[in-house]
Amino acid sequence: MMTPKGFQYSGVRCGLKNKRNDLGLIVSNRPVQAAGVFTTNQFCASCVGVSREALKGGLLQAIVVNSGNANCATGEQGLRDSNRMAQLVSDSLRLEGPVAVASTGVIGKYLDMVKVEKGIHAAAKKLTNDIKPFMEAILTTDIVEKWAIAVADGSGHKFSSMRTQVELEGNGVVLGVAKGSGMIAPNMATMLAYLVTDLDLSHLDLHSILKTATDLSFNRMTVDSDTSTNDMLMIMANGESGVKPDLEQAQAMINAVCVDLAKQVARDGEGATKLVEVRVTGTSDPVKVARTIADSPLVKTAMFGCDPNWGRILMAAGKAEVPLSTDDAVLSLFGIEGPEYLLFEKGRPTAFDPGKVSAALKSDHVVIDLKLSEGETATMYTCDFGYGYVRINAEYTT
Amino acid sequence: MMTPKGFQYSGVRCGLKNKRNDLGLIVSNRPVQAAGVFTTNQFCASCVGVSREALKGGLLQAIVVNSGNANCATGEQGLRDSNRMAQLVSDSLRLEGPVAVASTGVIGKYLDMVKVEKGIHAAAKKLTNDIKPFMEAILTTDIVEKWAIAVADGSGHKFSSMRTQVELEGNGVVLGVAKGSGMIAPNMATMLAYLVTDLDLSHLDLHSILKTATDLSFNRMTVDSDTSTNDMLMIMANGESGVKPDLEQAQAMINAVCVDLAKQVARDGEGATKLVEVRVTGTSDPVKVARTIADSPLVKTAMFGCDPNWGRILMAAGKAEVPLSTDDAVLSLFGIEGPEYLLFEKGRPTAFDPGKVSAALKSDHVVIDLKLSEGETATMYTCDFGYGYVRINAEYTT
Repeated sequence: MMTPKGFQYSGVRCGLKNKRNDLGLIVSNRPVQAAGVFTTNQFCASCVGVSREALKGGLLQAIVVNSGNANCATGEQGLRDSNRMAQLVSDSLRLEGPVAVASTGVIGKYLDMVKVEKGIHAAAKKLTNDIKPFMEAILTTDIVEKWAIAVADGSGHKFSSMRTQVELEGNGVVLGVAKGSGMIAPNMATMLAYLVTDLDLSHLDLHSILKTATDLSFNRMTVDSDTSTNDMLMIMANGESGVKPDLEQAQAMINAVCVDLAKQVARDGEGATKLVEVRVTGTSDPVKVARTIADSPLVKTAMFGCDPNWGRILMAAGKAEVPLSTDDAVLSLFGIEGPEYLLFEKGRPTAFDPGKVSAALKSDHVVIDLKLSEGETATMYTCDFGYGYVRINAEYTT
Repeated sequence: MMTPKGFQYSGVRCGLKNKRNDLGLIVSNRPVQAAGVFTTNQFCASCVGVSREALKGGLLQAIVVNSGNANCATGEQGLRDSNRMAQLVSDSLRLEGPVAVASTGVIGKYLDMVKVEKGIHAAAKKLTNDIKPFMEAILTTDIVEKWAIAVADGSGHKFSSMRTQVELEGNGVVLGVAKGSGMIAPNMATMLAYLVTDLDLSHLDLHSILKTATDLSFNRMTVDSDTSTNDMLMIMANGESGVKPDLEQAQAMINAVCVDLAKQVARDGEGATKLVEVRVTGTSDPVKVARTIADSPLVKTAMFGCDPNWGRILMAAGKAEVPLSTDDAVLSLFGIEGPEYLLFEKGRPTAFDPGKVSAALKSDHVVIDLKLSEGETATMYTCDFGYGYVRINAEYTT
């Protein structure tokens, strides 16, 4: 896997989880430009505040993440533990720059700081160019690791991810990794994403680029319409490639990485069998209409059942509180690699073949395309909603 | 069952559904004061417009309802069919006053007007004081019929419903019946509720009372956060009891009937095993906080799994976009007839016994009580979310 120059990674098992790595580090060889965006949930963990504070000066040298315990609803002691995690990393590696902290997992329990301390010491000794152990260390209920890479390529960029797996060459790399959202009782999982790049970008530019990219990617993704207490997205840029891209190119590269990670997270939603992409064109607020469709349990169960249920999609659009006329609606459904099926236009369902459309909906990447008027197209990413979601989220035994 | 004077009911099977009555009538002996509230979904059926129009003068003499076909997304012909249903009732019974129309069931298909016409003629001949055949005729995926009655009683009122089954005496009756929300592919079910009373109330008072009652009952109920295309609630009042209540008493009686019907609808939500009552006290918008909790799939799956998952409840409150401090939150859970369990206060979970709380959550009426500050308490009614919902809504075979 191609990685940006100047960063190292590690992941170890310190015992907060049973089977997988549960403590990870990303370390830069010096304090570098950095930016972050954080959960808007008012019920949020102490690590969110600690990382926000670390980023205040626009510099960061390391990120430490533990899974298995979210250190949330843990009061004063929780805050002390988050700060201590940063300090332990700083001391182990004799860092000059600030350290960001993230925790994900069970809420309402104090961190076992004996384990965490041992884990940080061990992780500090295992830093390499391989990000895989780190990717594993941040997972909770995720089934697969998630990554995406963009490399500057003359005027544009090339791109590789979990799904496309393209061989890359070039100079000036953006590498992103993420873990999924969706929650498991009594755990509260979290969306975490980290981007590292050797492009030359200031923290002010990083902040603005990251905000825009988030709005088009992670903020367009919904697994179950619930927002976690610990969500966090950060980027570090050290300029070591010597490539100083124009802002438009940097934005395109970071957008590509974030959108791909968001799709990977949606596809790996709890119990999901497919990625559902909702495209809405027209109206004064296509994002709101697309979000309402993507959040509808009736639409999501229909997608799970491969049911070409145009009525539920129009019903969801109609309740979005955005002025629209369903008489003007043109609705198509399709699997990403197959033919497009027109289901509704001119106020009436078409004479489509339900069997054919249902077969198309068996794809692991389904598109709902709803045109309501001329205008912009907004895309939301979600997953279907089946027995797996209920099983994961209801079958908790005390 | 006690019923108000001056109204008759019938329900017949005309063949739109297989096994149950599918066409029903409520008829008054003369045009009487009436009011209605309707779905706000912009994708709505022609019967909604026809009934709105019928109510324009504040009078109504009959209501005709069919189940098995929602006559929605059926264009001009659908509108003609809705108007024709009203006309057929009017002609069969030689009515002088307006007739309201409701349809519920499959969408996107034309009504079989041959069957409907036969059904209306048959129903017109079967009018009695028994509302049970009508109650059956309006059901779609509902398991049980839903009714509630309030009777004026000196200064106050007495109350009976499906659940309480109290013997009533008195003069001045409000009788309400309803069918549930929740949808089934490719059907789109609907919340319908009809109230008839022999209290003496003007259509202007009825309208204002009904709106207030709806805000406290049907608008506080969520099965899956989806809004139907055909939702409709109507009341007719003929004054035949000779009782002219003050508005406060009338409001109390109609509130009681509507709240009880809303609870019955929530309890009978698709796949539901229990009624979940969410009470939120304090903040600037306790309704919004309660609604966000009641709509959260993670909270609803936890209730299905009898999981005392306080973290999800606080997470849902925290994302409601209402300023609040979860450090001040006091959260209790309990079954309606059992002891109250305190799970969270002073920013931390209590040392509650998860086994005991889980046992309490096996009740078929569970209460989530969240106090966030001093202030008003708002209540929302919802149900749990389990395999049954997925089964009903995903297992459609084309």
